[in-house]
Amino acid sequence: MELIEIGKKARSAARILATVSSADKNKALTYIADDLEKYSAKILSANAIDLENAGNNGMKASMVDRLRLTEDRIKGIAEGVRQVRDLPDPIGEVVGATRRPNGLQIAKRRVPLGVIGIIYESRPNVTADTAVLCLKSSNACILRGGKEAINSNTAIADIMKDAVKKAGLPEGTVELIRDTSRETASEMMKLNGYIDVLIPRGGAGLINAVISTATVPVIQTGVGNCHIYADKDCNADMAVDIIINAKTSRPSVCNAAETLLIHKDAPQEFYTKVSAALADKNVQVRACERAILKFDGAIAATEEDYATEFGDLILAVKMVDGLDDAIDHIAKYGTGHSECIVTENYTTANAFLDRVDAAAVYVNASTRFTDGFEFGFGAEIGISTQKMHARGPMGLTELTSVKYIVTGNGQIR
Amino acid sequence: MELIEIGKKARSAARILATVSSADKNKALTYIADDLEKYSAKILSANAIDLENAGNNGMKASMVDRLRLTEDRIKGIAEGVRQVRDLPDPIGEVVGATRRPNGLQIAKRRVPLGVIGIIYESRPNVTADTAVLCLKSSNACILRGGKEAINSNTAIADIMKDAVKKAGLPEGTVELIRDTSRETASEMMKLNGYIDVLIPRGGAGLINAVISTATVPVIQTGVGNCHIYADKDCNADMAVDIIINAKTSRPSVCNAAETLLIHKDAPQEFYTKVSAALADKNVQVRACERAILKFDGAIAATEEDYATEFGDLILAVKMVDGLDDAIDHIAKYGTGHSECIVTENYTTANAFLDRVDAAAVYVNASTRFTDGFEFGFGAEIGISTQKMHARGPMGLTELTSVKYIVTGNGQIR
Repeated sequence: MELIEIGKKARSAARILATVSSADKNKALTYIADDLEKYSAKILSANAIDLENAGNNGMKASMVDRLRLTEDRIKGIAEGVRQVRDLPDPIGEVVGATRRPNGLQIAKRRVPLGVIGIIYESRPNVTADTAVLCLKSSNACILRGGKEAINSNTAIADIMKDAVKKAGLPEGTVELIRDTSRETASEMMKLNGYIDVLIPRGGAGLINAVISTATVPVIQTGVGNCHIYADKDCNADMAVDIIINAKTSRPSVCNAAETLLIHKDAPQEFYTKVSAALADKNVQVRACERAILKFDGAIAATEEDYATEFGDLILAVKMVDGLDDAIDHIAKYGTGHSECIVTENYTTANAFLDRVDAAAVYVNASTRFTDGFEFGFGAEIGISTQKMHARGPMGLTELTSVKYIVTGNGQIR
Repeated sequence: MELIEIGKKARSAARILATVSSADKNKALTYIADDLEKYSAKILSANAIDLENAGNNGMKASMVDRLRLTEDRIKGIAEGVRQVRDLPDPIGEVVGATRRPNGLQIAKRRVPLGVIGIIYESRPNVTADTAVLCLKSSNACILRGGKEAINSNTAIADIMKDAVKKAGLPEGTVELIRDTSRETASEMMKLNGYIDVLIPRGGAGLINAVISTATVPVIQTGVGNCHIYADKDCNADMAVDIIINAKTSRPSVCNAAETLLIHKDAPQEFYTKVSAALADKNVQVRACERAILKFDGAIAATEEDYATEFGDLILAVKMVDGLDDAIDHIAKYGTGHSECIVTENYTTANAFLDRVDAAAVYVNASTRFTDGFEFGFGAEIGISTQKMHARGPMGLTELTSVKYIVTGNGQIR
């Protein structure tokens, strides 16, 4: 029942937010940024409790690092809030207008989605990052973070709620679900009528749970089994630079490459150079039968390897007979995130761009660029790997809907 | 298991359709139109079986009429196919492009959604209407019509499949689920990986069943509890014309009005005229306590009346204290379809447009215009009442997604 109450508050806030001025939203965002810094001691002491619990529960070091906040990290969060504040307001934009033969004027106006639900895992910065993107786009949000960060999330959400109130906006603008049980999460996924869109941010397990349970509309994000295809006509040095960058610059992120596909007639020098470069970066290679001898220390790849988002310094490698074969492999194992061909051949490049079905398809550039900031959106709430509503990096515009404004002088049909 | 096979065929067809030329799609659409006419006898004899079954099952006359096909109706369907063929192809359009500081070129290109599932009720024309919209937008479709029309649907789908094959397109372009059991429908709603978007076309019962069962992305369509608000500053004659048109021109459709809200200080002449006009059209009025005496023969409205899409010559009426009250009523009972104010007051009109949350918000025109043809889209697959992906009438563009085409010359991050 508590959840319905939260839903009602958020829904009622959303109705007000839909007509709030940009100036009022920006005032609230300024207060949020300032107060996160001002009350950082509160956040840090709440975070200390989460860290202590993590220690007691034997959480692994990389996870503890994601959970940890510092004075500097809080400053970074506040700076992010100010950057979002300074972006153009997407709400109210007219994205098309027409006059019909009967004189009716029809304009398509950008409006907020309403109430956005976010389910996320350990990192407490997501609490602030997503709430301010929702607020900037005039949406109320219902946040549901993980149990491991509940004290940090509560401290951050309380500061944001106070700031929002101080700015004269409705308190329901930012709602945090404090009960971190699985049952409550499942209930949230069925909060039809209160949540307009639910965005899961986390690993494949979380996203699949949301897809199979939710009855509210969902935007799938973030699972990235990305491929680099080194064509026979590739520039070998460029191909090496791209695969090394895509695999090793940040292996844990969703736009990192997981599989290297190599044309059977790719330049010999490519094999030599890529094998050495991967070894130099301590990347474990899991290769198909045809490619394995080209890579020192490689082990045999399994079917499962091709389907896995390693998120680690592991790379699956497969030799393919040509473009068709590469595209078939990507269609079978890809998650529709980011796919790249390295080639100097005009026709091959265009065929790859046309035929590969993914949010972002690249020629001769690293898949690591699939990112709201790199695409020039100024911010990002996630990367959609579905085709409905939004595809690829989602900025403020992707947090909006439209409505038709129809004005007449007595037209009937 | 059969369903998975259908899903695989459609998915494989979708991959091919994504790069088929407009000319090839138009050829298939021409064959479909021609063959529906050429083999109309086959369709009519299949339809005769459905009609006989309907008679045996005691189907009511209005439903039988929806089910009935005639030579003329088939001609109408074929004409509709040709109209869709002659619309501009939405696929391949570049809807935005940018060059980033690092030289990366990023273009946003319109692509098909992939495989569209449609679940619909009795009318067999929907089989052709929706399949050709999907084909024109390079999507494969999986159709699941009602049991009562299965013979007609099968005949139409078989003709379309042959036409598609003759045009050299993959057979899986149009798939019909011939098993009309509830279990199969439920299974279809969970065909993740094979269906990209599911669109239910039918009554509130069907739509709610889809929303609560589906794990594939859904676009909600068609439930319309629409309001006309006669403001105190309305032109009485215009308000009467609009409510009569919105209620009586076609009461069964989703953009028909169901409730009339009247400002307590609306012109006396409005009451006199609207009461007479509604009586003249045999509309039963169900009014609130304050309004009931103004309408001859009106009965008392219940809470449920305000929440009901009558689809009939019944109108709920409520007197309200002003704009806020009207907007609150619409927020409580509306389904986010079409909402109208009749007023000559500039400020009131704009406040209504800003604050009412619906797919289409009107000033001084009948809600009956919420329609793909009336909006100038040339065709319509349904009217979305959700905010994600598409809102309001959905034409060909709403059956597309986008992908980012990123071209570089070796950029790494």
